[in-house]
Amino acid sequence: MSNDYKFEGWLGLDKDAVEGKMQWKEFEPKPFTEDDVDIKITHCGICSSDIHVLRSGWFPTQYPCCVGHEIVGRAVRVGNKAERGIKVGDRVGVGAQAASCLKPDCEECTSGLEQYCTNVNCSTYNGNFADGSKSYGGYATYNRTPSHFVFKIPDALDSADAAPMLCGGVTVYSPLKKNGAGPGKRVGIVGVGGLGHFGILFAKALGCDKVVGISRSNQKRDDVLKLGADEYISIDEDKDWATKHARTLDLIVCTVSSPKLPLMDYMQLLRTNGKFVQVGAPEDILPDFNALAFIGKGATFGGSLIGAPHEIEEMLQLAADKKIKPWIEQRPMKEANEAVVDMVDGKARYRYCLVNEESK
Amino acid sequence: MSNDYKFEGWLGLDKDAVEGKMQWKEFEPKPFTEDDVDIKITHCGICSSDIHVLRSGWFPTQYPCCVGHEIVGRAVRVGNKAERGIKVGDRVGVGAQAASCLKPDCEECTSGLEQYCTNVNCSTYNGNFADGSKSYGGYATYNRTPSHFVFKIPDALDSADAAPMLCGGVTVYSPLKKNGAGPGKRVGIVGVGGLGHFGILFAKALGCDKVVGISRSNQKRDDVLKLGADEYISIDEDKDWATKHARTLDLIVCTVSSPKLPLMDYMQLLRTNGKFVQVGAPEDILPDFNALAFIGKGATFGGSLIGAPHEIEEMLQLAADKKIKPWIEQRPMKEANEAVVDMVDGKARYRYCLVNEESK
Repeated sequence: MSNDYKFEGWLGLDKDAVEGKMQWKEFEPKPFTEDDVDIKITHCGICSSDIHVLRSGWFPTQYPCCVGHEIVGRAVRVGNKAERGIKVGDRVGVGAQAASCLKPDCEECTSGLEQYCTNVNCSTYNGNFADGSKSYGGYATYNRTPSHFVFKIPDALDSADAAPMLCGGVTVYSPLKKNGAGPGKRVGIVGVGGLGHFGILFAKALGCDKVVGISRSNQKRDDVLKLGADEYISIDEDKDWATKHARTLDLIVCTVSSPKLPLMDYMQLLRTNGKFVQVGAPEDILPDFNALAFIGKGATFGGSLIGAPHEIEEMLQLAADKKIKPWIEQRPMKEANEAVVDMVDGKARYRYCLVNEESK
Repeated sequence: MSNDYKFEGWLGLDKDAVEGKMQWKEFEPKPFTEDDVDIKITHCGICSSDIHVLRSGWFPTQYPCCVGHEIVGRAVRVGNKAERGIKVGDRVGVGAQAASCLKPDCEECTSGLEQYCTNVNCSTYNGNFADGSKSYGGYATYNRTPSHFVFKIPDALDSADAAPMLCGGVTVYSPLKKNGAGPGKRVGIVGVGGLGHFGILFAKALGCDKVVGISRSNQKRDDVLKLGADEYISIDEDKDWATKHARTLDLIVCTVSSPKLPLMDYMQLLRTNGKFVQVGAPEDILPDFNALAFIGKGATFGGSLIGAPHEIEEMLQLAADKKIKPWIEQRPMKEANEAVVDMVDGKARYRYCLVNEESK
């Protein structure tokens, strides 16, 4: 069976791509196997990882690349070994992870930690599948991904809302859920961007006793309270905030990727056995890491990477059940270059979602 | 009822005390209440905290002080509200913690986390009880401590072996137990001193699949293997140790208090979701703390402070059941000054225990 459709998308050819210079071109997806699903893309969120990859910020990108890993669309071809009972015509999504080894002797893949599998080097938007073919992301017409990483979208969710959850959402949902966010818990979310705004929405949906948004200025205070947070802390403008709010939080999820974060002040906010989880990825060392702050209250600093497939399914269901409404701005797929430039400029409130109008 | 015995001990009068200048003097214990137990001390371990306190290393010590918080002896006076059914004549012990508020509205005290209670400022060897009286430790003839922090010693344990467990032992037992050390787990212990040697003994006793001792030189390799470790890593002498042993451990407990520890190399040793727990207390920041090392494998860095009363009881029972035999050198109480100087010089293999011969 050959395709009667073409894989085309916005390709980055070098690191200038991030400056509005992606080019619309055809590309060759991985060879289809009976585990795969082809998706006619209707929506794709813009994640800040896209920016890092377009400009070779974290590591040298293998150009040409097609970024985008918050993909929603219709399944148009489904291998006969596909998981999750996916059928042609289903509305489905793909997140940041396009592959892991899934071998029976892989400790990560067999314990619901596929995102940490070390036997593959391929995300949805960069790197190679095990067969050596390149992986291409969702700023495109079609996407081909192994079905283990393709999820049905619950009917109650809008596609434009569901798409950014597939990476941005689960990146905060996973550490919230794993660290017990729920009734009886007080949670802080540091940084109010795409990830942080999901953090507030999910922490509330999980039933936390108190959710506190934490950001530099007071600029986002109103938005954060409208999103449902119980409190807001401006670390630049609220006087003595660390002392005033000392020992008030059980868990902090930090979405900021600047290494200049005042970590020791954040540690003050934690209660005994409190947990600080970093999901933003700073490129430098944290300058003021003092072990005594952890020993004195039995606290931990942890990292967390996106989320596992089972967590993505769980999150989508929670979002449908609790009618979670993220703040999404829809942008036409044909204006992807402009949207990326606006994303770099920090204009998203709080997530852009590219839309293929003709595919809807 | 007045005492027919005198509280006398080795007092530090200023920070020179650590240089063999403690003086034998009488001191006034806290006023006796019906919650308290008086102990005729037979044994007291020497902990490196004693050194820090004698020389005002962590904070300005309130001289005169009597250090020592690994106390074993006989109960000679027991308040009628004493906990744990302690009776006169029982062999009992006291660890590093002499008080916490124990109020019904204290989150820490009501959840088995007494060591993190923030409503008191008193250890066994320094600070003040809630009534304002001073706390005195175990380099002495007698000790008076609230019964919530006094433990019966199981018959199967020697007093000289039990004493150093009450601080040194539980400081590593608590994080091992809390972080799941046991069958199926591979554990590393960084630093082979008093704490580290207990770490190896307890990790083995808890049934871990593999226990690895990690230290600078190869000098302690034989001892560590004799203690029961399955493997030994010398970070100064074993070539490419971090790469060679990458992803082999689920948990690392670090007993070293130098801030120069090669943390990022240790992180390499951890598996996905691995945990690094710091119990040694460095006085400076950790210089190479890179968040990506944590995000990439969902790892955590945590701190842990001694252990709670229920953990001390559990540990003593485990030590009795598993016939744990720590490596203890007994020293006469009258030679406490010499023993402290030897401790400062790193001569203990692996813990000194002072003995009041005339009280045995």
